[in-house]
Amino acid sequence: MANTEHSAAVAAFSERFGELFTTNLTLREQHAHTQTWLPNQPAEGVLFVTDKQMVVDAVKLCAQYHCPIIPFGTGTSLEGHINAPQGGICIDLSRMDQILHIHAEDLTAVVQPGVTREALNQALRHTGLFFPIDPGANASLGGMASTRASGTNAVRYGTMKDVVLSLEVVTAQGELIRTASRAKKTAAGYDLTRLFVGSEGTLGIITELSLKIFGRPEVIAGGVCAFPSVLAACNAVIMTIQAGIPVSRIELLDALQIQACNRYSKLTMVEQPTLFVEFHGSEASVTEQAEVFADIAAELGAAEFNWSSDQQELAQLWKARHNAFFAAQALRPGTRAYSSDACVPISRLAECVEATRQDLAASGMVATILGHVGDGNFHIILLVDLNNPAEVEQAEAVVARISQRAIAMEGTCTGEHGIGQGKQSYLQEELGATVDLMRRIKQALDPLNLMNPGKIFS
Amino acid sequence: MANTEHSAAVAAFSERFGELFTTNLTLREQHAHTQTWLPNQPAEGVLFVTDKQMVVDAVKLCAQYHCPIIPFGTGTSLEGHINAPQGGICIDLSRMDQILHIHAEDLTAVVQPGVTREALNQALRHTGLFFPIDPGANASLGGMASTRASGTNAVRYGTMKDVVLSLEVVTAQGELIRTASRAKKTAAGYDLTRLFVGSEGTLGIITELSLKIFGRPEVIAGGVCAFPSVLAACNAVIMTIQAGIPVSRIELLDALQIQACNRYSKLTMVEQPTLFVEFHGSEASVTEQAEVFADIAAELGAAEFNWSSDQQELAQLWKARHNAFFAAQALRPGTRAYSSDACVPISRLAECVEATRQDLAASGMVATILGHVGDGNFHIILLVDLNNPAEVEQAEAVVARISQRAIAMEGTCTGEHGIGQGKQSYLQEELGATVDLMRRIKQALDPLNLMNPGKIFS
Repeated sequence: MANTEHSAAVAAFSERFGELFTTNLTLREQHAHTQTWLPNQPAEGVLFVTDKQMVVDAVKLCAQYHCPIIPFGTGTSLEGHINAPQGGICIDLSRMDQILHIHAEDLTAVVQPGVTREALNQALRHTGLFFPIDPGANASLGGMASTRASGTNAVRYGTMKDVVLSLEVVTAQGELIRTASRAKKTAAGYDLTRLFVGSEGTLGIITELSLKIFGRPEVIAGGVCAFPSVLAACNAVIMTIQAGIPVSRIELLDALQIQACNRYSKLTMVEQPTLFVEFHGSEASVTEQAEVFADIAAELGAAEFNWSSDQQELAQLWKARHNAFFAAQALRPGTRAYSSDACVPISRLAECVEATRQDLAASGMVATILGHVGDGNFHIILLVDLNNPAEVEQAEAVVARISQRAIAMEGTCTGEHGIGQGKQSYLQEELGATVDLMRRIKQALDPLNLMNPGKIFS
Repeated sequence: MANTEHSAAVAAFSERFGELFTTNLTLREQHAHTQTWLPNQPAEGVLFVTDKQMVVDAVKLCAQYHCPIIPFGTGTSLEGHINAPQGGICIDLSRMDQILHIHAEDLTAVVQPGVTREALNQALRHTGLFFPIDPGANASLGGMASTRASGTNAVRYGTMKDVVLSLEVVTAQGELIRTASRAKKTAAGYDLTRLFVGSEGTLGIITELSLKIFGRPEVIAGGVCAFPSVLAACNAVIMTIQAGIPVSRIELLDALQIQACNRYSKLTMVEQPTLFVEFHGSEASVTEQAEVFADIAAELGAAEFNWSSDQQELAQLWKARHNAFFAAQALRPGTRAYSSDACVPISRLAECVEATRQDLAASGMVATILGHVGDGNFHIILLVDLNNPAEVEQAEAVVARISQRAIAMEGTCTGEHGIGQGKQSYLQEELGATVDLMRRIKQALDPLNLMNPGKIFS
């Protein structure tokens, strides 16, 4: 990766930014891909930006030296999004963590990109409002916008594409632009907000987000429900969605994942395929929702559905759900959790998950299935010994089959993790010539290919 | 507009498409801008396409002759979207009116672009499902996607950006591409679906749409409520939204608009500023919503709020609402209704509408205010004698002030009508350098500037 221009950029960054810039190898590696099966490809330096003007200056410097720029939030993405395969400078936005405005009366919040979802909810806790999008990790909101994150509440509240009203972005030319006003609706030109949401840092760096926030529901109730099989659980999900129950969370964990969560979070759930469900609304509404769901579950042979609106009990449950990744990892110490996701139209969910279950069983790998099944979105976690090339190859083959199976069912190779480095060939299989349009847009907005190069497409 | 290449294109279209292509002046004028204050700028010919291959062939022919292409649905857009300022061929998609699939189990429908919203709802009437987006006109779904349409239900169900899952598009190069799979969520690359939604035909021609559809609510209830002032009505809207009432429609009509509707639709509403509201849900839920709304209205000095779930009564009400444009037009025969819209954060709604009311009163023009106020979106309808240049100038000045007022309140110059030819200068005022990014995208996807040139920006 040694490159004269990059070396000159590193020198210029050192001179310009002093202690806010580092070339320390440990820090560089921590800012590259530590949570995935992908090799760690560190940037040549890390800049800790503290305000938007620093981002503008950094981008202009990088443009001057033709040096790649890799934006970094909390580093929890899963497909190699923050690796630096062509070298360059990592721009760490975690210190831009100010909540700038809470417009409670408009149900919007304006934040810097380094604010995490938990920090925003902490700031909202006395307002009666909350921010619903919750991928497992306590990710930064800038990173969540960049990967079009979703998580457990998406079935009711949508994904980042639905809750971002407007973005402030530093373009590849170092210009500071705003994609839209703070109005709830707009028909003013191309929807650049949603072009930047999910663009994985390849079109610009987000320096401010205007987000929708929501009234905290009067009552939150939920519980877990064990099913005789993954197929039965998926069919319950399909019927729940088709019945129009406005469920706010409906999550599948297979038997092995439940076992892992029991061990990791010290719980005593029945070790069978299980749905975690949650309902938001008035007392009457959540009762109605829970009763209709209980009927559906019973019809599909589930054990009794016990639900509660005890907030401590629910919090423990969802903490266990959010720790599922680490719980799975603990199933096979010394291995790495290799997580992948796919999403299909809800009518194909049971078929797709069941075929995946059989595929995993046949492979003999240690692997769990879980996911945001109300959206037709599910994950696998494969426990892989990265030092064993045969295992890695086997894992890659499983992921390829899942992606192709989802695509064949009119679905997508990724519902929320994104393309990054890991899924470029499946994106091509899924969308074909459409990827050329994406490339043309990238070329138009970033002609020097400075912004997170080698992601989405190379 | 005479141009050798265009003439050659017209000759080639005549030869290739026979009777499906016409150069008849009346038809050409009917396909340009007949419903607005903007001058009618007809295309040089109109092609009635019947399938996607014809669209591909037409685009390739136009590319060969460097001849502009203007896509046409039902011709109900309001900002000169279907004019042909640079000549070219109008592509009429109204005969591509097949509903291809209703996937009731996935809550999605796949349609050709010429299907109108009413035709889709007619096809869904025995399924227990419906399509909620309803601009006033019975517009085509392709046109609605192209202008990012919304309408009365948007406050609950979102706009076209929220209900389009995927599009099939013919690009400026005559390639047929699909923007996304039919999965409910995706993180597979740039969000081209939402780039094409609202692009006003400037990036390609939509030949197929996959749309979300929704379960018909168990109970639909609603009614009208008269307020002492526009300000009081707007404050009631703000409180309703902030209270988290999941109202499905909340529409403002000022006193003059009510008078116009009474005359046009033979109704006897009290001629005061009025909210039309509708609630969707279970019996218990709509009752709860209506009661909370009634309390808010009473607090703001409204007359008693009478509501009902009589479907015939509600249908009559909403028909009157949808005919508001024609009702307003009848207020001053011989003039043209010049409609404009703006959208602001909900907290600024009362202030913005009240300032607009005072502005209109001071102008002495015949004008009404109405709109989808639950989203902070409102319209004015100015009745203008187009033969009187002083009146036209005055109308333009009013529209300029409304746009600028909305922008100053962190809002947008258009919540749903779009930019077209009419609002290009306000788009520039609203988004500045961001418009250059839009131009770069346009240039990347349509380097010959064939797709509906002169719209959004020139």
